[in-house]
Amino acid sequence: MLNSLTQDRADVMRATLPADRFADANAGHLEEPRGRYAGTAGLVAQPQTTQEVATLVRAAAEARVPVIPYGGGTGLVGGQLAPDGPLPLILSLDRMTTIRAVYPQENVLVAEAGVILADVQAAASEVGRLFPLSLAAEGSARIGGNLSTNAGGTGVLRYGNARDLCLGIEAVLPSGEIYHGLSRLRKDNTGYDLRNLMIGAEGTLGIITAASLKLFATPRSIGTALFQVASPAAALSLLAMARDHVGESVSAFELIHRQGFDFLAETMPQVRNPWDQTPEWCVLVELGLSGGVTPAEALEGLFEAALEAGLVADGLIAQNEAQRTDFWTIRETIPEANRRIGSVSSHDISLPLGALSDFIIEAGKRIRALGAFRINCFGHVGDGNLHYNVFPMPGKTRADHLAERDQIKRTLHDLVHEMEGSVSAEHGIGRLKVDDLERYGDPAKLAAMRAIKTALDPLGIMNPGAVLRALGRV
Amino acid sequence: MLNSLTQDRADVMRATLPADRFADANAGHLEEPRGRYAGTAGLVAQPQTTQEVATLVRAAAEARVPVIPYGGGTGLVGGQLAPDGPLPLILSLDRMTTIRAVYPQENVLVAEAGVILADVQAAASEVGRLFPLSLAAEGSARIGGNLSTNAGGTGVLRYGNARDLCLGIEAVLPSGEIYHGLSRLRKDNTGYDLRNLMIGAEGTLGIITAASLKLFATPRSIGTALFQVASPAAALSLLAMARDHVGESVSAFELIHRQGFDFLAETMPQVRNPWDQTPEWCVLVELGLSGGVTPAEALEGLFEAALEAGLVADGLIAQNEAQRTDFWTIRETIPEANRRIGSVSSHDISLPLGALSDFIIEAGKRIRALGAFRINCFGHVGDGNLHYNVFPMPGKTRADHLAERDQIKRTLHDLVHEMEGSVSAEHGIGRLKVDDLERYGDPAKLAAMRAIKTALDPLGIMNPGAVLRALGRV
Repeated sequence: MLNSLTQDRADVMRATLPADRFADANAGHLEEPRGRYAGTAGLVAQPQTTQEVATLVRAAAEARVPVIPYGGGTGLVGGQLAPDGPLPLILSLDRMTTIRAVYPQENVLVAEAGVILADVQAAASEVGRLFPLSLAAEGSARIGGNLSTNAGGTGVLRYGNARDLCLGIEAVLPSGEIYHGLSRLRKDNTGYDLRNLMIGAEGTLGIITAASLKLFATPRSIGTALFQVASPAAALSLLAMARDHVGESVSAFELIHRQGFDFLAETMPQVRNPWDQTPEWCVLVELGLSGGVTPAEALEGLFEAALEAGLVADGLIAQNEAQRTDFWTIRETIPEANRRIGSVSSHDISLPLGALSDFIIEAGKRIRALGAFRINCFGHVGDGNLHYNVFPMPGKTRADHLAERDQIKRTLHDLVHEMEGSVSAEHGIGRLKVDDLERYGDPAKLAAMRAIKTALDPLGIMNPGAVLRALGRV
Repeated sequence: MLNSLTQDRADVMRATLPADRFADANAGHLEEPRGRYAGTAGLVAQPQTTQEVATLVRAAAEARVPVIPYGGGTGLVGGQLAPDGPLPLILSLDRMTTIRAVYPQENVLVAEAGVILADVQAAASEVGRLFPLSLAAEGSARIGGNLSTNAGGTGVLRYGNARDLCLGIEAVLPSGEIYHGLSRLRKDNTGYDLRNLMIGAEGTLGIITAASLKLFATPRSIGTALFQVASPAAALSLLAMARDHVGESVSAFELIHRQGFDFLAETMPQVRNPWDQTPEWCVLVELGLSGGVTPAEALEGLFEAALEAGLVADGLIAQNEAQRTDFWTIRETIPEANRRIGSVSSHDISLPLGALSDFIIEAGKRIRALGAFRINCFGHVGDGNLHYNVFPMPGKTRADHLAERDQIKRTLHDLVHEMEGSVSAEHGIGRLKVDDLERYGDPAKLAAMRAIKTALDPLGIMNPGAVLRALGRV
């Protein structure tokens, strides 16, 4: 059983480090972006070094007090706070913001867990390199949290998710031991893959304190276009064609439905719609090119081949940086338009690429069978990752549909599972999807996860209740 | 304590499956390519389905008999046989050779563990795709073993190692439960990364029975060149320049020392040396291009830029397929020339890229301090992976240096460790490097590995003695 961080226990904790390493929890520590959970807190610790993190974890283990690791607080599944249970120690990484080293020739950068993602990108850019992890919250998300949740974003298609961008980690294990694994090696086959086990474990197996990250050559030129496609299936054929034309240079491939443009027109009319007639489906394609081909040549060549193959009907190629920004603004503003409309239910799902098109058709049927709704389905289609969001009809609000919300979610998640997809593509399990993981997860995997959790964190102090149900609270 | 697979126990085991699933061990099961270990065997099982693998593992757990998973038998570190301890069940995957599905549009192929690597490549090629895992043993190595050992090879620079090429696995856990994880998803954040934990665990945490693998667009054209470089440091600068020119299109970047050409001339004079005057160092560069640039343009452009920057002194660009084959024959025949000379000590090591050049200089000094030797240092320099091999001087043989062998190994491994490298870049730990892992491995990682092993395999039946010392045998 875990203990609450009572005043007495907090005093013991405070005695382990200088006084300025502790503070009371503020609103930011107790909220999460979607407002589903409110956190409880005894004390916030802000260690400045890995040693200090280890000291805190040992003290928490000694006192059997829960530890909630806290990065930028941008997680969408409630992994960063404890809404119930014993009062925890909130262990914030926000003072561990040193970029320890940059190795341009090696394409490696070593950052502490508290470095903000945008600052990692900037440090890479300063040496002429690219750190390609890119997502909406990059101005406040911290790299330790990005790794703990295996963050995704728009660069996954070309460069992989956070896991793929990490060569090594340093972490404090639940025992308080420090795992020194800041490898800069591209090949290292010496034992079990502890790095990838910690990545995506959402702080339940320890606390990532630093990471060595992969950098890439910055593409020499960038080309961006909107292509009208007849269907999501045509979009996927277009992606395959694009890769045949330019290989790995396809940097982004985002599917957009007309509903997104309609929501923008309704809520944010200042966002320019470049189409004369908005197509039902279009894709935002971006190429990041090296070598001799110009973006215009590459995109025009692709468009002509796709036109001939009947995959595209119309296309707009950005002629300058302003137009490129316009195109991206549409894609990046749709989530805000969605928020202004107010969804009944939102879903971060992924499907095998070959099942995507059938999923979109079948999901539409099943949702319509539940009532009249507007559906905005968009996302990182090249990764099979859809943001599938269900909205009320004009004149209604989400409050009118609270009763149907769980059924909509269950209907969609059941279909995703039937089609061998995932109910958490890039946001993780946190506390929001613990039930889903139990319902849809492979039983042998769940048993192995519980065995690993018990083996590495026998007291159950690390982020209890995230990913796996806390012991004793079934 | 584990039991030997005595005749009685073997009879119980045989009763679980049809008689033709069992055989006596043959020489292949009891040997390994370097001849350091000879295996012991009671019985070989050749299951045809994942269910049958599960049946066998449950029976072995019941009898507390060791299980040695056996793929193609090409491992170089003795992971595939039990040289001592209780007589094991050898569980061969060689009858699980079905390619279960190919999804060209998804760039996914699902293969059973016993499919030979070259057959995976061929199946991808049949649908116009590339499966880029490529290594010398590809004609007999099986994909399950490639994954269990996280195999490397020449394609790692561009496409990653076996781990990076796998989207999902199916595996039988030590409990006999089947983990159904044959995901075709590019994004899936639902719980701990059991896939990557099994990959590289060398059969000590269960048996991979099938995998979903990533395919890639086949490059439209290939260009190959040999460039003379002044030093390994210049080679790395050339690689950075090449990536600035052609991005991810650099498919291979292999460093070759003059010693390799000299050994070829000495042992296999029929292999053509294209240089008029053999440089001390050269690199084999291969570009796999898509889009508008021709290989000749790209390589000539790179050569001119590198010449201007003082990175290269001379270069040979393959003008046709025959010349390309000639260049690769040199690289691929050097290991055979090494075998004919007979190394005193061979090392599969990796270094941070920035430390490679200093390592080569310092290692040379330390070896020379031990005596007169010839050194052939070559390998996948873009990955920081060197095959660093030490040979007797002309007129001497390896037998003359047996006394120095351990000291040479220790000297080199100590230096690798000092420079934050790995003593097993791509071959794994097996039984050969258990001592090295204990000496050089991070203590917190080793403790976590032992905890995970005990949690998932409490009886210790899975490949005991590989990676981690078997319980009770310190």
